[in-house]
Amino acid sequence: MTESILSRRDLRFLLHDWLDVSALTERERFADHSRETFDSLLEVSEDIAREHFAPHYRKNDLNEPTFDGETVHIIPEVKAALDTFAESGLLTGAVDEEYGGIQLPHTVSRACFAWFQAANIATSSYAMLSMGNAALLLAHGTPEQIERYVVPELEGRFTGTMCLSEPEVGSSLSDVSTRAVPQDDGTYRVHGQKMWISGGEHELSENIVHLVLARAEGDAPGVKGLSLFIVPKKLVNDDGSVGQRNDVVLSGLNHKMGWRGTTNTLLNFGEGAFTPGGKSGAVGHLVGERGKGLAYMFHMMNGARIGVGSGAVALGYRGYLAALEYARDRIQGRPLEDKDPAAPPVHLVRHPDIRRMLLASKSYVEGGMALVLYAARLLDESQTAPEAADRERADLLLDVLTPLVKTWPSRWCLKANDLAIQVLGGAGYTRDHDVEQLYRDNRLNPIHEGTDGIQSLDLLGRKVRMKGGAGLRLLAETIRATTAKAEGTAWAEQAAALETALARTESVTATLWADGDPLQAQSNSWEYLEAVGHTVMAWLWLEQALAADAAEARTGDSATSGGTDAGATASGADSSAGSAASRASGADDTAFYAGKRAAARYFFSHELPRVHPQFDLLESLDRTFADLDDAVL
Amino acid sequence: MTESILSRRDLRFLLHDWLDVSALTERERFADHSRETFDSLLEVSEDIAREHFAPHYRKNDLNEPTFDGETVHIIPEVKAALDTFAESGLLTGAVDEEYGGIQLPHTVSRACFAWFQAANIATSSYAMLSMGNAALLLAHGTPEQIERYVVPELEGRFTGTMCLSEPEVGSSLSDVSTRAVPQDDGTYRVHGQKMWISGGEHELSENIVHLVLARAEGDAPGVKGLSLFIVPKKLVNDDGSVGQRNDVVLSGLNHKMGWRGTTNTLLNFGEGAFTPGGKSGAVGHLVGERGKGLAYMFHMMNGARIGVGSGAVALGYRGYLAALEYARDRIQGRPLEDKDPAAPPVHLVRHPDIRRMLLASKSYVEGGMALVLYAARLLDESQTAPEAADRERADLLLDVLTPLVKTWPSRWCLKANDLAIQVLGGAGYTRDHDVEQLYRDNRLNPIHEGTDGIQSLDLLGRKVRMKGGAGLRLLAETIRATTAKAEGTAWAEQAAALETALARTESVTATLWADGDPLQAQSNSWEYLEAVGHTVMAWLWLEQALAADAAEARTGDSATSGGTDAGATASGADSSAGSAASRASGADDTAFYAGKRAAARYFFSHELPRVHPQFDLLESLDRTFADLDDAVL
Repeated sequence: MTESILSRRDLRFLLHDWLDVSALTERERFADHSRETFDSLLEVSEDIAREHFAPHYRKNDLNEPTFDGETVHIIPEVKAALDTFAESGLLTGAVDEEYGGIQLPHTVSRACFAWFQAANIATSSYAMLSMGNAALLLAHGTPEQIERYVVPELEGRFTGTMCLSEPEVGSSLSDVSTRAVPQDDGTYRVHGQKMWISGGEHELSENIVHLVLARAEGDAPGVKGLSLFIVPKKLVNDDGSVGQRNDVVLSGLNHKMGWRGTTNTLLNFGEGAFTPGGKSGAVGHLVGERGKGLAYMFHMMNGARIGVGSGAVALGYRGYLAALEYARDRIQGRPLEDKDPAAPPVHLVRHPDIRRMLLASKSYVEGGMALVLYAARLLDESQTAPEAADRERADLLLDVLTPLVKTWPSRWCLKANDLAIQVLGGAGYTRDHDVEQLYRDNRLNPIHEGTDGIQSLDLLGRKVRMKGGAGLRLLAETIRATTAKAEGTAWAEQAAALETALARTESVTATLWADGDPLQAQSNSWEYLEAVGHTVMAWLWLEQALAADAAEARTGDSATSGGTDAGATASGADSSAGSAASRASGADDTAFYAGKRAAARYFFSHELPRVHPQFDLLESLDRTFADLDDAVL
Repeated sequence: MTESILSRRDLRFLLHDWLDVSALTERERFADHSRETFDSLLEVSEDIAREHFAPHYRKNDLNEPTFDGETVHIIPEVKAALDTFAESGLLTGAVDEEYGGIQLPHTVSRACFAWFQAANIATSSYAMLSMGNAALLLAHGTPEQIERYVVPELEGRFTGTMCLSEPEVGSSLSDVSTRAVPQDDGTYRVHGQKMWISGGEHELSENIVHLVLARAEGDAPGVKGLSLFIVPKKLVNDDGSVGQRNDVVLSGLNHKMGWRGTTNTLLNFGEGAFTPGGKSGAVGHLVGERGKGLAYMFHMMNGARIGVGSGAVALGYRGYLAALEYARDRIQGRPLEDKDPAAPPVHLVRHPDIRRMLLASKSYVEGGMALVLYAARLLDESQTAPEAADRERADLLLDVLTPLVKTWPSRWCLKANDLAIQVLGGAGYTRDHDVEQLYRDNRLNPIHEGTDGIQSLDLLGRKVRMKGGAGLRLLAETIRATTAKAEGTAWAEQAAALETALARTESVTATLWADGDPLQAQSNSWEYLEAVGHTVMAWLWLEQALAADAAEARTGDSATSGGTDAGATASGADSSAGSAASRASGADDTAFYAGKRAAARYFFSHELPRVHPQFDLLESLDRTFADLDDAVL
């Protein structure tokens, strides 16, 4: 396979020119690292992703897991790829050295993992689930639990899941009905059904470590009564060996629109198929304290939401590059200004409407990647900044941004996949090209880990209000630091437009919550999410534009910097030379920086203005959805 | 199956209360009809669609046609459904009695056919292709051609195709390379490959009548050299019996993202697999005059584009109703204003963000249906209005609206399918529910019969400019007649907003074409299509609101009319009673009219304002896509 699935050049720009990840090596935790180790791990990631994950991308889709009543069958390429991933050490990229990890900054390990998500989202999911599971247990498990369950996960021998939803409980976790009955020996017996469990059953690992949200007998209703339990598929003996089956049984596989290579399951816990220790119920081990299950889950889920955003970016990015390659290769039609049928036809990319779709997609996927890596950088700051105040600020900013990190790529990088189908036309609608599968795979992202609608309620109902609005104030301050940098540059006009949108964000937030009525405030939460999301993305595009100018000035190519470069606007020629992959060389840095500026200008001219009708609507305190009598639907 | 796939109640409103189709029975062509015959055919359509088409909707998807090298295998339900359809007479709904047709108004036959498109888009496509093929030949074929090819099509014994695209020729038909060599006996021999041919090969009929766009030897390059040929799969003998194989051979089936039940083929013409009459080449019969092939095709294609719009509406409508039913049935979560976990959870439809998705979808699918039926009504006017001037006006208005009839539903009713997946959440992402298939099926509509991008160029480059801008002037005049009706009603504010958008449409069109440069004018054609599309849809929502008020006043239920009714805005109760299907009774007319008003208000508050940033951009004569150097992508 020769096509690009992500842009190495763009990652280099974001990680080094913009986020300056090398500066992190001055901190004790990352002292053993250097720019060179970061770059070589990124290269290793790309190589393994392309060689071991990408080749079975379509095969995963055409051969989804099957259940014969005994065993789940998965194509062998999946286990081979996961084993290679684990052997490479990348499974423990961000984990402490104490547990055999590489202790990479999250910023770098997030970028590394994006290669795997782009190459094969379904296969990479097994690894992501285990990493999330292990991270939770490293934070909240006992040393014995870590030894028994986490270490084998980090070695790639066990895999992990998160079991939250139930058949009747999707978004409303306070209604979880799975029960955990305390036993004399300190363990619990778990009874209930869990739905939508990814990686819930397979033969890819020796054991599966389920983390199950359940209510211990006698605990309160609502979220405060929920606890978290380790419920392994097979019991683990005291010597660490895998023992008898626990009473966790696959009830059925879900058959999805996309993302088909990842098993998605309905699991029965403690329904009597097995009787471990001669007793009924699935054996469970409490994690941390009783009643804190959801808090632990959410701690982990913030990471998972960045992971969802990253996956959405990766799928959109791959689709954009596929569409770009097709548009550069395919000859069709004649220019608008010269329809002479005797003239030779031109490449698709020559047509303004094709360029519209490609430039829009570029702004979505590169913008999405910037957002995800920025969030990962905040996570690093929140954990390793030398000053406590800086750690707290980073944590606060990450908290307010997390709903956007999950939803903006889920919405707009999915849109890039939709546009990629359209660029290819009829071909894009066939299964001969990846773009249709990329769309189907990405369509899950607005749904799982909290639907985008739920995220909009989280943003407007909680995140911008917490700590007296400190998170929103910090975000505004951070954005204004960028617009201040843009003063006197070629980006002053864009900075002013951003300041207007930011000011409207602040005033609308105050207006919506003026009388404190959640129904009044939140019944247009979706419009709020959209408007604030595009405002934040405009900020990140201004950041990238300024970083591109600065980087280009550093390389001495400063003649074309400053946002008015001829390179981005002059030529109308039908250029099909230079694939995105070939850019890695740096020979075409000029085109790369001009591309950043073109995408930034596009975002300000075509995308940011959308927010104003949305802010208008929010300011009007529209009650359409609050008051609607649903009988009229 | 109990669920609704379209709303009988809405069709009744649109056809009778709004478009007054019964008035057509005063015209000679429709004199044998009455409101009763129209209604009974609509009922028959619904019944056959539900009994014979809907039950194999998913099966069509899971069992797409296969080719064993000899024969294409299709599940037997498809032929059974098509035979029932033909026997019902609906295949000839709009056809002249002279050819055994029912001579229905297009408005009614379009509504009838929407039931089949909603029930099973793939199976209905075979019928639609034959109807389009037959309509073209009835208009342009010789009596002998009609006798030999069309009559068997109308009887359901033959089926038809349209063969335009080629492997290297998609949107750019001027580059068609299929050749037709004239023979001494007046026939032609056709050589070439045709791509994306729906219904191109199967065993559903005795014969397949391909209509092939090709260049007769020696004719000019470009579109002016293209002619249209009948190339039957099997030759038809002088006595009408089906004879030997013509040299039309299936080269391969395309495997699509959706719409899988319709074979989509690559066909080889005259490549030597058969030698009919002992000579090489596929036998073809010229239709009409040489060099007019594309004109004939476009004549037919206008009908096909309304058919695409109708299909997009039908798929979106079915998705909306499925999401509504789910949201009324599924219990999940608690109200924003009362999160007490001890309180009982509520139906999904109770949540504002779910209502947002449902009300938006309602505005898209009911608006789309209004647009499609309005277009069909114009077609009836253009053919049967007593005054020539009225016929010309209807033809002109239809011409300018056609790009919108094709694209607006393709974009926004597809959006309704996307929202339906989101309303169902994880369940919507599985193949256990139709909503994911509805999305995949509908995703073809922005691509085929001229991509939406091509339609945007047609609208801005041709339709609003033709005849010195007469089409746009007529559209504006027609819209202003509606806003004039709204004066003094509860809809005055919406009418004013519509007038503003309309005035901007006119001024932007003039600005874009001020210097006559097509690149300058058309490089933002997509934004133009979007802005004008939403303006036109706002007009149709104002029309529906006024018609709802008037209809309700007539029924005596006038207490709640006038757009300020309590029914649409008061109750916050969790009402899950009353499915869309049960509305047919008329018992809940109040809710129905209130729903029309709620959707109209939604469209004006949430949708129409989107157009202003788009008009701003167009007015700025933005050159982003015109000037972009694609090397920076």
